[in-house]
Amino acid sequence: MAAIMIYKVFPKLNHDTAKLTHLILHAIATVLGAFGIYCAFKYHNDSGIANLYSLHSWLGIGTISLYAIQWVFGFVTFFFPGAAPSVRRSALPWHALFGLFVYVLALATAELGFLEKLTFLESGGLDKYGAEAFLVNFTALVVVLFGASVVVAAVTPAHVEEPRGYAPIPIN
Amino acid sequence: MAAIMIYKVFPKLNHDTAKLTHLILHAIATVLGAFGIYCAFKYHNDSGIANLYSLHSWLGIGTISLYAIQWVFGFVTFFFPGAAPSVRRSALPWHALFGLFVYVLALATAELGFLEKLTFLESGGLDKYGAEAFLVNFTALVVVLFGASVVVAAVTPAHVEEPRGYAPIPIN
Repeated sequence: MAAIMIYKVFPKLNHDTAKLTHLILHAIATVLGAFGIYCAFKYHNDSGIANLYSLHSWLGIGTISLYAIQWVFGFVTFFFPGAAPSVRRSALPWHALFGLFVYVLALATAELGFLEKLTFLESGGLDKYGAEAFLVNFTALVVVLFGASVVVAAVTPAHVEEPRGYAPIPIN
Repeated sequence: MAAIMIYKVFPKLNHDTAKLTHLILHAIATVLGAFGIYCAFKYHNDSGIANLYSLHSWLGIGTISLYAIQWVFGFVTFFFPGAAPSVRRSALPWHALFGLFVYVLALATAELGFLEKLTFLESGGLDKYGAEAFLVNFTALVVVLFGASVVVAAVTPAHVEEPRGYAPIPIN
């Protein structure tokens, strides 16, 4: 999220600094995502649960793969060695669009995860209308709204600073 | 989908015809969606299953509500009585953005539905790696890819027809 928003939240940041931060934050996210998937496999194997049968797992593996591809593509095109200016110009909107697609895929995977885990808990006896179930579902809704606000902030044009100052307010 | 794409797929269609088709298709989709939700309640009540406890149901109710709000807002602003031209101009990009958001929500609800139904079937004994489970998961992936292609087609600029013709191909 912070990696997507850096150019919008800090429009006056030095461009190279913003780019490097964007790159590093996404690298950290990729590593954390891959570690999360490793943990899922380890937990499954330790508990004797089957691997890779649910849509959550399929979409999750697909998302982290696309995320890593997007990172490598961005690194090669915009950082090192870096493509020709005309290529970068035409690639940038696709980089942003594909990045938002992967972000939305990550959100969808999270929603599937909330539903899957809660369904398991409920089939194990958890009250369907209890506080814990409501907590999970409301958290999932907050994730949807938060994700939508990030996408809106990313696609709307940057804020143009208008000249401000004090002016006498006329009486009547 | 057809309702979203009408302006892009038929760029030469009379604008009023395109708008009316857009409006009617979305109206049909809203009615079908509401009927689908009615059927879910009826099935639950007839089978003694609890209602409105899962994320699929919460997100589904939210999506159809936003869909209906978006339809009424669009009808009033762009069709009857219709807002002033300046209001329509500034409202149009938000109408499109919010429409795509609701479309993505509908896709997410469908994904949750695939996962929820399959989880119930699997906890009832269906083979986790069987043909039926694979069919559901691959259908769900096709829905994701199809949805992404609709969004891409909707957000990319309209195709500009370039002059075409035959030209002699030089030898060497």
